Amino acid sequence: MTATDIGPVLYEVRSSGVAVVTLNRPERLNAWGGGLAAAFYRCMDAAEADPAVRVILVTGNGRAFCAGADMGDLDTISGASDSGESADVTALVGERHPHFVTKLRKPVIAAINGACAGIGLTLSLMCDIRFAAAGAKFTTAFARRGLIGEYGISWILPRVVGWSVAMDLLLSGRTFLAEEAAELGLVKQVVAPEDLMPTALAYAEDIAVHCAPSALAVIKRQLYDDALRDLETTSDRAETLMYESMRRPDFIEGITAFFEKRQPSYPPHEEDPT
Amino acid sequence: MTATDIGPVLYEVRSSGVAVVTLNRPERLNAWGGGLAAAFYRCMDAAEADPAVRVILVTGNGRAFCAGADMGDLDTISGASDSGESADVTALVGERHPHFVTKLRKPVIAAINGACAGIGLTLSLMCDIRFAAAGAKFTTAFARRGLIGEYGISWILPRVVGWSVAMDLLLSGRTFLAEEAAELGLVKQVVAPEDLMPTALAYAEDIAVHCAPSALAVIKRQLYDDALRDLETTSDRAETLMYESMRRPDFIEGITAFFEKRQPSYPPHEEDPT
Amino acid sequence: MTATDIGPVLYEVRSSGVAVVTLNRPERLNAWGGGLAAAFYRCMDAAEADPAVRVILVTGNGRAFCAGADMGDLDTISGASDSGESADVTALVGERHPHFVTKLRKPVIAAINGACAGIGLTLSLMCDIRFAAAGAKFTTAFARRGLIGEYGISWILPRVVGWSVAMDLLLSGRTFLAEEAAELGLVKQVVAPEDLMPTALAYAEDIAVHCAPSALAVIKRQLYDDALRDLETTSDRAETLMYESMRRPDFIEGITAFFEKRQPSYPPHEEDPT
Repeated sequence: MTATDIGPVLYEVRSSGVAVVTLNRPERLNAWGGGLAAAFYRCMDAAEADPAVRVILVTGNGRAFCAGADMGDLDTISGASDSGESADVTALVGERHPHFVTKLRKPVIAAINGACAGIGLTLSLMCDIRFAAAGAKFTTAFARRGLIGEYGISWILPRVVGWSVAMDLLLSGRTFLAEEAAELGLVKQVVAPEDLMPTALAYAEDIAVHCAPSALAVIKRQLYDDALRDLETTSDRAETLMYESMRRPDFIEGITAFFEKRQPSYPPHEEDPT
Repeated sequence: MTATDIGPVLYEVRSSGVAVVTLNRPERLNAWGGGLAAAFYRCMDAAEADPAVRVILVTGNGRAFCAGADMGDLDTISGASDSGESADVTALVGERHPHFVTKLRKPVIAAINGACAGIGLTLSLMCDIRFAAAGAKFTTAFARRGLIGEYGISWILPRVVGWSVAMDLLLSGRTFLAEEAAELGLVKQVVAPEDLMPTALAYAEDIAVHCAPSALAVIKRQLYDDALRDLETTSDRAETLMYESMRRPDFIEGITAFFEKRQPSYPPHEEDPT
Repeated sequence: MTATDIGPVLYEVRSSGVAVVTLNRPERLNAWGGGLAAAFYRCMDAAEADPAVRVILVTGNGRAFCAGADMGDLDTISGASDSGESADVTALVGERHPHFVTKLRKPVIAAINGACAGIGLTLSLMCDIRFAAAGAKFTTAFARRGLIGEYGISWILPRVVGWSVAMDLLLSGRTFLAEEAAELGLVKQVVAPEDLMPTALAYAEDIAVHCAPSALAVIKRQLYDDALRDLETTSDRAETLMYESMRRPDFIEGITAFFEKRQPSYPPHEEDPT
């Protein structure tokens, strides 16, 4: 598979080992909804399963990264609620919660090309690292629609930007720009729009080339698993994981390449290194 | 109730839906103690109970926000301790811990007009968001008096400013200015003293006007409840809360106002939306 | 004991109450390994036990702070693993995990003079506060060697620099300079190399002189103990600890010195104030 159009999502695997997943419903600002969500899950599953893929890059086509829930769907739900009917909310979100992205073994990087709002912002926060185009607009939006902190943003946002900034962004629902997002630590770097994909790709490719797939999978898992452990348990568990890593070909190749001062050549992803 | 003097605390409800609670014992630098604390609790309870109040703003009159425990009280306790007597420490703190502020359904914003030290700093950290006047002095102070991290500052400070900054501020007990507090993320913004109340009020009023009371209550609760949950449980719980929010008038009004491109008009606080 | 050479670690107790522990295997970039580790433990134990020591400062001699695991040891393990033998990993780490530093009652400050990598970075993060010399190179390195997040770095790094920066530094294994480390909050301050020891010593001495030993021990313990507690439990526990502190000579001296506007003179460390 090299470049495929899976419904409203584009999927491309580059020779560098980076899969690019592009939300592609620009006329609706890549608003989250049934069709887009299902296609996104299929692309992410394909990238996770493909041994040629080392890193996954998520971006959007057009003016938005993902403007949040489809307001048409929300209006339908609101109308149904107003008239006492029950509405189908699953159509809004799809069959998975955004945190499924954190379960993938492969690093996921978001290249936020434009508007990033509501569940779109939650989704971007479930990616491991974020880059943004200058001028891109961000907002949690929830409090301004009578909604709540959706699908785990109340867990991840304070960990990314700190407690008070999370309170500020969630309680006010204010709009802020990519430049402020970078200052707040919500995105790693803000660059000119034309530099967004080259910058994010260069970062992803550096990881794909130099970092061992098994190491990436274990390290990503460690952060989530250790968040609620104490330090002693974390350190004991890390020792076990270190011993396991020292028995893998990735370790031998990593050390050998280091001593030979050459680029490492890691074998493809093992079945499940965690 | 519009503007009342409840003992050493001033209480005013503005037409914008913001209650202003002003510590008013300037001759003692608004030092925390029995009389001030009890009046503060009464004002906060009044604001929480008043349907006309959407957001609570806490500030101080005079040169200090709150300079910490009343050193006179501390001296009495120290003297009693020195002579082997037991002292009444409850007089120092009052009948509540500062974290009662985090239990209020309404957002609480601190406008730190001057010195903010010891339990005064702890209190300000239990507010959801902080603004500060340029030049205001901050210090944890505890380690320099032989005291410890009081009443939850060891929980909230590392979450607000990160682990190492919390260690620095608590172990050194050093004094730092509002400008550094802003750099460290301890306050959202530092402004000229004459701009402090206008800036903090404008921020509070923006929330009071645009954000649904039920959403604010749920979101504030989510952050504290989810701090020790795992991501999956948080996301599952958020889904339930989202469904509940979609059955409230606040959601219908939020969506309708969005589509009609007008300011929302949310009904007053429900009894208990959480 | 004033200045002693304990194997490959230098140990000096200054009259100011600061113990300086210097990793001193410059020809191996102070790489972590059996001999260095064992000597380090002995010096840290001596500093913790010595009543004259109030604060511990850790630094390195030569071009590196600690360049990580000894690559010679790693190569031996890698070779053994490659040939199907089992290797002695304990030689690599020593008999303790780096988080033993967090159990010490006394504040530990790192003065990072040069390269700080792998387990060397983990060790520095177990210190309470870090200063760095301009130009010093940092890297987690693990992912680039097929290794994992070692010995608790997956716990402490996200708490120090936030979730996304931790993911960036651990997944990419990229090298970054002291200047960026300061921006990210990984070090408190970056100064010219010749100013590193004077700056770190001045900070350590300020704590040694002005802060009560018992308060330092309790506060340091609070942060680690309260990390996984809820806010209410933390506040209740803090109240108990406050009452206990008010019965100690350190409190009486702290308050008395404050009122007499003089430098406090705290008695040496009690046996175990926690």
